[in-house]
Amino acid sequence: MRGTCDERCRLLEMPADHAIAELSVTRLVLYEDQTFPGYCLLVLRDHATELFQLTPAVRTALVEDVCRAAEALQRAFRPIKINYAVLGNQSPHIHWHLVPRHPGDPAWPRPVWTHAHEKQVPSPGRAREVAQAIREALR
Amino acid sequence: MRGTCDERCRLLEMPADHAIAELSVTRLVLYEDQTFPGYCLLVLRDHATELFQLTPAVRTALVEDVCRAAEALQRAFRPIKINYAVLGNQSPHIHWHLVPRHPGDPAWPRPVWTHAHEKQVPSPGRAREVAQAIREALR
Repeated sequence: MRGTCDERCRLLEMPADHAIAELSVTRLVLYEDQTFPGYCLLVLRDHATELFQLTPAVRTALVEDVCRAAEALQRAFRPIKINYAVLGNQSPHIHWHLVPRHPGDPAWPRPVWTHAHEKQVPSPGRAREVAQAIREALR
Repeated sequence: MRGTCDERCRLLEMPADHAIAELSVTRLVLYEDQTFPGYCLLVLRDHATELFQLTPAVRTALVEDVCRAAEALQRAFRPIKINYAVLGNQSPHIHWHLVPRHPGDPAWPRPVWTHAHEKQVPSPGRAREVAQAIREALR
């Protein structure tokens, strides 16, 4: 187990066009690949790699951020389901994948990772528009 | 969005050989497919489909259960990383996939769902042994 992040930790350095909001203990950003529209990463600002390494107080704040972000995605994209995942095999710094899912999306109903595809990177202007829509849906 | 579970919700009915423990608000069970040894499901006992539908108190209890289970998997299997996911596209009842990951496992370092494979269902006796090992690692 990696106990702390190392110098390869670049998750907190995202392009400005993809920034959505700073929440209680996390940073919400639009994922670079928008094959699944609204796919976001929610990145813990502290450096840690497993949920059980956090204090209960930070964990509670983290999960409240997760819910605030997921509910904003629900309002903005009207998915049938939100998918949540903390993986970190390649970038162990704690970050949540939050993916609005729709019947008929390219992987439905399977996990998004079953769908091999070329990344669909939005233009900077389009990324700013989507980030703004999610920001407005945050409460 | 599905607001509540429906009659297809069968996640709380798992074979007895796969039962590990009843935690605060969840039931921990060994996943039927053990291609990734120690892969567990942590199933919320209440019926709900999105984390943001839960009260903050239930959410906090849920995440403490997640961490207790994940730490037990860490002790029992010594993975380099735990993967956590709440998907629910096919079974929307809230359940966490908890997967101990090792360099050299069949999908490493990609998400387990990228690895198409036949299920490896353990014998009832083997399932009971693995469940017992995880139970003993719970604190």
